[in-house]
Amino acid sequence: MNAELIAVGTEILLGDIVNTDAQVISQGLSEFGINVFYQTVVGDNPTRLRHVIETARDRADIIITTGGLGPTLDDLTKETLAAVFGQKMALHQPSLDRIRDFFQTIGREMTPNNEKQAWLPAGCTVFTNEWGTAPGCAFEAYGKHVIMLPGPPRECEPMWKACAMPYLSRFAGGCIVSRNIRVFGLGESQMETILHDMMAESKNPTIAPYAKTSECYARVTAKADTHAACERLLEPVVERICGLLGKDVYGVDVDSLEQVVGDGLRQRGMTLAVAESCTGGLLSERITGVPGCSDYYLGGVCSYANEVKINLLGVQKETLDKLGAVSPEVAEQMAAGVARALGADVGVGITGIAGPGGGTKDKPVGLVYISVWHNGRHVTRKMQSTRGRDRVRTQAASTALDLIRRHIL
Amino acid sequence: MNAELIAVGTEILLGDIVNTDAQVISQGLSEFGINVFYQTVVGDNPTRLRHVIETARDRADIIITTGGLGPTLDDLTKETLAAVFGQKMALHQPSLDRIRDFFQTIGREMTPNNEKQAWLPAGCTVFTNEWGTAPGCAFEAYGKHVIMLPGPPRECEPMWKACAMPYLSRFAGGCIVSRNIRVFGLGESQMETILHDMMAESKNPTIAPYAKTSECYARVTAKADTHAACERLLEPVVERICGLLGKDVYGVDVDSLEQVVGDGLRQRGMTLAVAESCTGGLLSERITGVPGCSDYYLGGVCSYANEVKINLLGVQKETLDKLGAVSPEVAEQMAAGVARALGADVGVGITGIAGPGGGTKDKPVGLVYISVWHNGRHVTRKMQSTRGRDRVRTQAASTALDLIRRHIL
Repeated sequence: MNAELIAVGTEILLGDIVNTDAQVISQGLSEFGINVFYQTVVGDNPTRLRHVIETARDRADIIITTGGLGPTLDDLTKETLAAVFGQKMALHQPSLDRIRDFFQTIGREMTPNNEKQAWLPAGCTVFTNEWGTAPGCAFEAYGKHVIMLPGPPRECEPMWKACAMPYLSRFAGGCIVSRNIRVFGLGESQMETILHDMMAESKNPTIAPYAKTSECYARVTAKADTHAACERLLEPVVERICGLLGKDVYGVDVDSLEQVVGDGLRQRGMTLAVAESCTGGLLSERITGVPGCSDYYLGGVCSYANEVKINLLGVQKETLDKLGAVSPEVAEQMAAGVARALGADVGVGITGIAGPGGGTKDKPVGLVYISVWHNGRHVTRKMQSTRGRDRVRTQAASTALDLIRRHIL
Repeated sequence: MNAELIAVGTEILLGDIVNTDAQVISQGLSEFGINVFYQTVVGDNPTRLRHVIETARDRADIIITTGGLGPTLDDLTKETLAAVFGQKMALHQPSLDRIRDFFQTIGREMTPNNEKQAWLPAGCTVFTNEWGTAPGCAFEAYGKHVIMLPGPPRECEPMWKACAMPYLSRFAGGCIVSRNIRVFGLGESQMETILHDMMAESKNPTIAPYAKTSECYARVTAKADTHAACERLLEPVVERICGLLGKDVYGVDVDSLEQVVGDGLRQRGMTLAVAESCTGGLLSERITGVPGCSDYYLGGVCSYANEVKINLLGVQKETLDKLGAVSPEVAEQMAAGVARALGADVGVGITGIAGPGGGTKDKPVGLVYISVWHNGRHVTRKMQSTRGRDRVRTQAASTALDLIRRHIL
């Protein structure tokens, strides 16, 4: 079996957006052992779209399209695929009802062009869109399988995983299972150096290193006839990697550092409060991105102005005047202050210079002090980051979470 | 003139990496007014690569490839392109010398396979690789222009800008200029309904609607001989669209709602503080994502626990007990309370149920109250969102910013 991906959207050809859908879908197909030989991007142009679809029909077993399912005039994917594969279009009443309900719920008028989204190839398998309005669908014709998914990544990715992958699973050749070993505190190349010999030797499971913003992970992938056989192949390899990487591994197949920290706090019945300056609320936002965080998270203060540090957190004016807002002492007073003000067991303080402005020779852009307070004691770290405001903030928030993980939990 | 992009690399087909090179190159071609009709990704397979190149040769004026220029056996791009276009390969001595020097500098032995990178189509224009080892190149044959760039984005992007764009500038067919009209408060389909007749009539400039999380925008694109001529075409159309969409337009060619709100506050010398419950710091994080926000942003309180609402923001316990934390009254007390506690001119309060848990029949998941306080007066809105925690939070934060924009600025 081989599959071909077609992304439909002039915005990709103009360079307005990157075709990230192709990555998500290719990863899934790869897990199924289905080869992808071509990915194509074509604009909202009926002639060229038709040409691309005909080419794919002649060389692929499975055609997966993304985009062009929306309500507007230039959304042509369904009509063109139906024409190439000799399918009639029909109104899918449940989809129309769902779209109507959606507009009613959000209290907006449903314009007539939205009805277009409920017209689908007659008799197709409908993928209900729980993340947006346009449904996806699948049909089979002339021995080929056609799957259509919406273009926006926040709709495409969940529909791919929840609907299209189960639909395609019958074509999977055997079983592929992966484990993601999540790492904070090592760079990708450092991790690769440690794992180099294992990676070179290992054919099944394979080991691949990946980098993410301010962290990295090793993906271990086994192929076998059954899930249990994959597990048996994975277990000793995952164990050995975790042993080699030690404390820098924060979890296997976990969602995120904030999830791991949250679970640890909940287990210990501890509460958390955070005080942020340069991260501006990012740490609080990440902690509260985990459902159920109200079990352990009380809240936070974003003390951007010095007066807020003094009035809400009890940071001493003399410390600010003498050592400056970006200093280990202020980070510590923020951590202890927010724990006191909110009545939390653990307090975090972050102060630094995210840039691009505000740096000096002594205190350059990217300098951040992070302190964690618990039971009257502090753990405080200095961090020097590079590469822009977003990176500095992300790395500082991650480092704070990692300090809690290593030293409190 | 039209161009076609071919990325050569099995790692893209496996979903290991995203084809970001395509975006960078497409943006540059768009600036030159060179149309991109197709982007294709193909693996390191000689037969399929040759097929893709032949297809591109028959329909494009310019072929730009990325990847497959490296030292290993599966790097085939140059050889295959040379074969399709009847070019001989020749050793390019300056490139070989440069690669040798590179290995000497980093103190690593140059393995013999690296010499392969210095073999290029005879007589081509060589693009020296100052960011890696494999040189890029360009040649002309049978009236077609071929450009080869390395695959790694950190090499591809600078070589594209420093070498390939200057090489291609002679083909710039006039000029393309776009304006993005950013909209909050209308869905994409509503916007399209309003602009429908204009979109159908308009050939130059063209008008295209796009959706983003909780907002949308219309992109107006003009083609003409000069930048000034594009501007003359754009001006009346942009003006007419802004007139039709009215107050829902929050800016033209602006970065974001938070940037527009920040600029407005700065101009008026006003300060801002925010109190967040369900958004958990997201609004604060977005406001502080704008460099220079300390001019107007004092800080915020994430009051996840009710005690924090009472102790730090002065929300009345009776109101919480009687009406619940998710109520317009609590949103208003949060807004006024955070403005008072931090000494700000404008205060925002957000309280709601982000989900997935915590919803009831009367107060379902996605219900959020948002209040903006200024000069003793409140503007308060009820919002009912659907589709998951992240969407609820993003839409609530955006709505808060939009309330400030519409009612305070």
